[in-house]
Amino acid sequence: MKSETGRGYPQVEIITAKRAGFCFGVKRAIDISFDIAKEIPEGVYTLGPIIHNPQVIEKLKAEGIFPLNDINDLPGKSISALIIRTHGIPHQLYDRISSQNFRLIDATCPFVKNAQHYAQLLKENGYQVVILGDRSHPEVKGIMSYAGDDVEVVDEQSQLPRLKTKVGIVVQTTQPVEALKKLLANIIEHVKEVKVYNTICNSTALRLKETSDMAGKVDVMIVVGGKNSANTTQLAYLCTSLSVRTYHIETEEELKKEWFANTRKVGVTAGASTPDWIIKKVEKRIIDMGGESCNGNE
Amino acid sequence: MKSETGRGYPQVEIITAKRAGFCFGVKRAIDISFDIAKEIPEGVYTLGPIIHNPQVIEKLKAEGIFPLNDINDLPGKSISALIIRTHGIPHQLYDRISSQNFRLIDATCPFVKNAQHYAQLLKENGYQVVILGDRSHPEVKGIMSYAGDDVEVVDEQSQLPRLKTKVGIVVQTTQPVEALKKLLANIIEHVKEVKVYNTICNSTALRLKETSDMAGKVDVMIVVGGKNSANTTQLAYLCTSLSVRTYHIETEEELKKEWFANTRKVGVTAGASTPDWIIKKVEKRIIDMGGESCNGNE
Repeated sequence: MKSETGRGYPQVEIITAKRAGFCFGVKRAIDISFDIAKEIPEGVYTLGPIIHNPQVIEKLKAEGIFPLNDINDLPGKSISALIIRTHGIPHQLYDRISSQNFRLIDATCPFVKNAQHYAQLLKENGYQVVILGDRSHPEVKGIMSYAGDDVEVVDEQSQLPRLKTKVGIVVQTTQPVEALKKLLANIIEHVKEVKVYNTICNSTALRLKETSDMAGKVDVMIVVGGKNSANTTQLAYLCTSLSVRTYHIETEEELKKEWFANTRKVGVTAGASTPDWIIKKVEKRIIDMGGESCNGNE
Repeated sequence: MKSETGRGYPQVEIITAKRAGFCFGVKRAIDISFDIAKEIPEGVYTLGPIIHNPQVIEKLKAEGIFPLNDINDLPGKSISALIIRTHGIPHQLYDRISSQNFRLIDATCPFVKNAQHYAQLLKENGYQVVILGDRSHPEVKGIMSYAGDDVEVVDEQSQLPRLKTKVGIVVQTTQPVEALKKLLANIIEHVKEVKVYNTICNSTALRLKETSDMAGKVDVMIVVGGKNSANTTQLAYLCTSLSVRTYHIETEEELKKEWFANTRKVGVTAGASTPDWIIKKVEKRIIDMGGESCNGNE
């Protein structure tokens, strides 16, 4: 997509990642939520924001889909349906709420379900489970609940903990494969038996790869998505680490014209929780700014 | 150990690797062979040279321990005992010779036995087995026989073959851990379930590590061991790759005085099949050469 001035020469070329925006699991959860909301006109609740994108959350509210921040907000409310979001939840919490008097809809991403399942399988087969991921992330908290008491969570910065003789690895679905390679290289020097389930979601891996390739070819990268979205933040971090000028924005309102001065190529990418309509608005605003700037009207 | 001239100052400092020479498995096999040879005065046979060191083979012959190059040499000979060497043999061959009319002594290294066992276990559990190693090495040929029809052998230079969805890895005991890390990094991008038994022998790993550390601190490295010894050749290759001047010799006879001109520090290391007495002779000859050279007698 090229922005053209009235003089007929290209000013700013915008390349948008093919894999920018909603992944399979997020699209599925949003679709499920809209379907349920249509069935239940008094409104439905999601356990935590269903995705980490404030603009999408506002749209969902308008359709009767409301986030509950804490399960303890439940007893005082009379609700008809509760939706578990893509990240999943700890199995103890699932057991607790599944016996309550409302419809429970599990929109956990199937890839996250896989990671939970493999963590449990490894535990049952006598492995000490190591989860590669961010221990504060809800997805990891859910997986941990299936992984046994001796579970360890490590990230790229972690020192390796003291490990047992049989170690099983599962991975937060949005981790970069490079982090898994690093963990494997580290662990294999200390442990004789390692079983790995590479539960990284392909969509994440491909989005990171595409973004990384793109970052090498453009003057500036615009990363679109919730400031509270781990995978969007990871994309921004990746671009910065590749030494390309990078801006992480939630909406087109944050774009600044001076970012595109003397700029020929702009890359646009977006996290798994960023809807298409926000990406389109960002593209359009960059075109407008490129046009204006090159015309020298300001 | 320092070579001193008559003038009382050090000339050539020799550092010998603590882990140079016979590993546990080789020492055990040689001890077993000597014990059996004492029991059977008419002599015993080993299936292939028991270690890859021509000088040791000559010593063994003097004690009544003879290598058979091929199992097909057997029928014409009347023998009392046959020794399986540290590398192990394919199980089909084991089955064939174990029913014959002589004593069969299995001196397969226990760590190689482990690798064979894990290859079989992986096969039985539905994994496609990948062996990291040299496909022409007898140890690898033995492990392969336990690994199922879809086994693949890869080395550091290999392109990754087309793999199934569940891959199990075992490793030739003398491989460097860096090669395993590289394989894991490669494989984990393509396969969702990987089980690794790190069957690299610690003694090999520590010898490589010690040699590598030493190579960074000396002017020249002398690597002692059979030219047909894979692990000795690997040590020499490692030193060369670290840009230190390196000579691979079998005995002290090959040493050349000019190698030590303007040399302060000499590192000596040796493969798992190199006996102590050869290492001692090499050390002594270097001292002699250093002394002579510094005295300016030639």
